Parts: sequence; structure tokens; C-alpha cells
Amino acid sequence: MTNYKLLLSYDGTRYSGWQKQGNTDNTIQAKLEQTLERLLGEPIEIHGSGRTDAGVHALGQVANFKTTLTKEPEEIQEYLNTYLPLDIRILSVETAPDRFHARLNAVGKHYQYRIDNGAVANVFARKYVARFTEKDYFFRKWTDLCKSQKRTIPGGAPLRNEQLPYDIAAMKRAAALLVGEHDFRSFCDNKRMKKSTVRTITKIDIKEVDGILTLDFYGNGFLYHMVRILTGTLLEIGIGCLAPEDIPTILEQKNREAAGFTAPSQGLFLTDVFY
Amino acid sequence: MTNYKLLLSYDGTRYSGWQKQGNTDNTIQAKLEQTLERLLGEPIEIHGSGRTDAGVHALGQVANFKTTLTKEPEEIQEYLNTYLPLDIRILSVETAPDRFHARLNAVGKHYQYRIDNGAVANVFARKYVARFTEKDYFFRKWTDLCKSQKRTIPGGAPLRNEQLPYDIAAMKRAAALLVGEHDFRSFCDNKRMKKSTVRTITKIDIKEVDGILTLDFYGNGFLYHMVRILTGTLLEIGIGCLAPEDIPTILEQKNREAAGFTAPSQGLFLTDVFY
Repeated sequence: MTNYKLLLSYDGTRYSGWQKQGNTDNTIQAKLEQTLERLLGEPIEIHGSGRTDAGVHALGQVANFKTTLTKEPEEIQEYLNTYLPLDIRILSVETAPDRFHARLNAVGKHYQYRIDNGAVANVFARKYVARFTEKDYFFRKWTDLCKSQKRTIPGGAPLRNEQLPYDIAAMKRAAALLVGEHDFRSFCDNKRMKKSTVRTITKIDIKEVDGILTLDFYGNGFLYHMVRILTGTLLEIGIGCLAPEDIPTILEQKNREAAGFTAPSQGLFLTDVFY
Repeated sequence: MTNYKLLLSYDGTRYSGWQKQGNTDNTIQAKLEQTLERLLGEPIEIHGSGRTDAGVHALGQVANFKTTLTKEPEEIQEYLNTYLPLDIRILSVETAPDRFHARLNAVGKHYQYRIDNGAVANVFARKYVARFTEKDYFFRKWTDLCKSQKRTIPGGAPLRNEQLPYDIAAMKRAAALLVGEHDFRSFCDNKRMKKSTVRTITKIDIKEVDGILTLDFYGNGFLYHMVRILTGTLLEIGIGCLAPEDIPTILEQKNREAAGFTAPSQGLFLTDVFY
């Protein structure tokens, strides 16, 4: 058996996520397995470093599979990039030690979340960012807050300017309180999670460049929806619905209800997997 | 009458170009006029700085229209960005002097052409770049040249690596010969063009960053398909099908057949219009 390690990138927009689910083959995993099976003529099981949800993108997902056939890595990459849809691209293929497993051997991950907070939406980024408008829960939460605090809403009412006045410094103070080893149960959307919800976040970077706000999360592992709930919570802190000082309490409560909203999938990228 | 000047951006992918054509309303101009007519309750005629072809994008198209109604520019922008499709965004609206005309007053334009020449296609840029594969005329032209010259084709045959070995220095030498006032009839796809085909190109910048090759063209005006034929010709020079020294001959012939191929629309952006 030869073990192959793949590095790949995908636009998650039209997929039901990474993992195969019952009869649907509209997943990244299913597309890869089907294409590899055509090349290799035997059943293939591919292991990703982790699942990405429906609509989530990847800049550097890692996966591995084993086959009884021996092919040049370049031939496998060439075949996949010829027959896979254009929204999935194989960046590299290499042979790996027999015991390499993309999920079990991963020691860390880097996710990036992108929000378009420019005065006017960027048409070319629109499928790869979150942008909050009047239709969104989060945007309404902010306008409600402005009204309750009698704050001036820039642009006046009806409010249609989608540019929110994020307090980046407050978000960074909150991020510093999230870094470290914590029980992140409050940041997990799987209520029946029976395994440990303790994880270590090693770094969170937050910056705004040309109207695009990016949040970079580095850690040893992330729970179901954890990056999106961390993002939602930091955004609620950014607009003043929550305070940085609320973070320790949110963590202590070990209750999903204590944290902020789940930011939408289309702004999320699995950027790097570390081994 | 009030004259309004608009600055706008659009993803041209799903449109039949800027200009209204007969019964189809699948144009940027038609979308804008329809939406403005709903706001203003009177027929509106909008003038763009120039037509963009089907599939061509804009980062900074300029247009103007006149109306008997007086509205705040912010109200017009707000209304358009609320009711236009998300692939058209109004970056600004301002009142302009009565005699301002987006096309007649334009003194120069800047277009950018983007080619993805990375080892593997960038999935997130794929709708906004040209990428040449085995299916393309241009790619086949290159493989034929390699065979005829007995050059080694990187990657061997069958050739599936889409990364072409552009000679950027040769492309820059050719670009320098295109700068200035010339009769660009050889670079015009309208064979029945009766008006002057003399134009001035003030600058052409060419660079490759992270596998994305960009060609920036600045000039006082561009003929039908001119930027795409200039790009096709420079790319043919880049791979050695034509030489920089061929440029003066191509210009002198005043014949479309003398120049290179017309690069596809999806890599082209109208970036700036100068007044």
C-alpha cells in the first residue's frame, strides 16, 4: 500500500461541506474519492484533516489516502486537476510514511474569517466574505442597541449603510482572554458533544485593511462551529453588545447560549494544517 | 435638470456587457436605467464612459444621467445599492456640472488584464482571470511551437501543466514599442471602423506576482477589443510566437490579421476613467 498526502484548495460555495453524508455526493470528499477511484480502479477512502461545514472554503486543506497501486504523485495531481471541478484544486501530492493520517496526526490549524466592512460591498470578494445588512440578525442587534442606548446611527434611519463601527481594540482585548487552554463548550454548537471540549488557542490576529476585517485563529483543534462562534462573539464585542470582560464568564458558563452568534460559513477559510 | 455622476464596480460574468442591445435587458446599462426609473418615475438615459464587452469587469466605470428631480446623491446611491443585483455596486454618486458627459469628457482610461499563470489555478480568482489550458487556441499554439522548434515541453507530453514560461522582458520591450501615438487599426476587431483608429497609449505596465500576471494599459482611448488584442499579442511575444521587433510591422500593416489573438473577456477590468 502507498500512502499519499494531498494539499488542496476549494471554494466551498456550492458544496455540502467536506464530509460524505448518506446519499449526497455533493461533498469535497465524495468528489475526490470518485475521481481517484476512476484513476486507480479500486475503492478509495480519503481522510481529511477535519470536516469543513457547508459553504466553508479551504486554502490549505490536507488529506491522505492509501492505494495498492503505485503512481507518481505528479500523475495523481495532474489527473485530479484535469477531472475535478474547477472549484477544487490540488496544490500538491506527495508520498507519506505509512502511518501518516491527515486527521490523527494534525497538531494545529489556522482558520481565517473575513468580513467586508467597506462603505460599499466589494463585488469581486462577495462570495468569500461575510457582509452584514439589514436582513441579518447581527445587523439588527446593532441597530436595536443603538436605539436602546439612544446612540446616533450613522446614516440615519432607515439605516442602510452596512459599515459597522467595530472597536478593534476591544476585540483584541477579548481575543487575548480567549488565547490559552480553556474549556470551549460555550463555543460549540454540538450540544451532545461527549468528548472533551478543552482546546488550546495559541494566537488570534485581528486587523482591518481596505475595509476587509480579518480574524486569524491558530490552535490545536477546533470544535463544531467554534471558529464561527468565536467570530460572532468577537463581532458582538466589536459593536458593544458584549464587553471583553464578558469572556471569562462566557467560558465559565459552558453553555452555548452565553456566547455570541454563529457567523455565516461563507466568510470562513481553513488556511493551514500543521503536523 | 440635475446631472449626476456615478462611479461603479461590476462583475461582468453574467452580463451581455455595458450597452443596452435591442430587447435584452441583461446589460449593466439596462439594470441601472430600470432601477433609476423606479426611483425617479421618469425615463432615464444613462451614459457610460464607454462600453465594456460581455464578460468584462469594472473596478471604476463612470456614468452620468440627468433628471428633472432633485435628490440627494446619497439617497440615489443608497437606493441603487439596495435594489441593484449584488454584482453591481455604486461606489459614489455626486452632482456634476450640466455639461459633464461621461463619454465625451473622458480624456483617458486605465484597463487591467489578469492572467493566472500559477502552477495550479487559484480557485478564488478563477472568474476574474484568464487561464490557458490545452483547450485553448493560445495554449495549442505554444505546444505546436515547442514541437516545431524541438523545444522541450516542461512536464512532458501529454502536456497538462498550464504554467507558461512567459518572457516578461521581451513583453516589456514590445510594450515600449506600442507606447505613443499610433494607428492601432491592426488592434481593432471592427473591420468596418470608419472613424480614425489613431490612439495614444501613455503607459503599459507588466508584472507577475504570486503567479498572477497583470498587464496595465493607460491611454486616451481604446478601440473595439483593442486591450484584449494588445494582451493577446504581448502574450504571443511572451511565449516566442512573435518577437518584440514584430510590433512596428504589425502596426504598419493596419490589418487585424497581423496582430495576435483576442484574449478572453473574463480577465479584463476597466479600472479607472480619467477626466
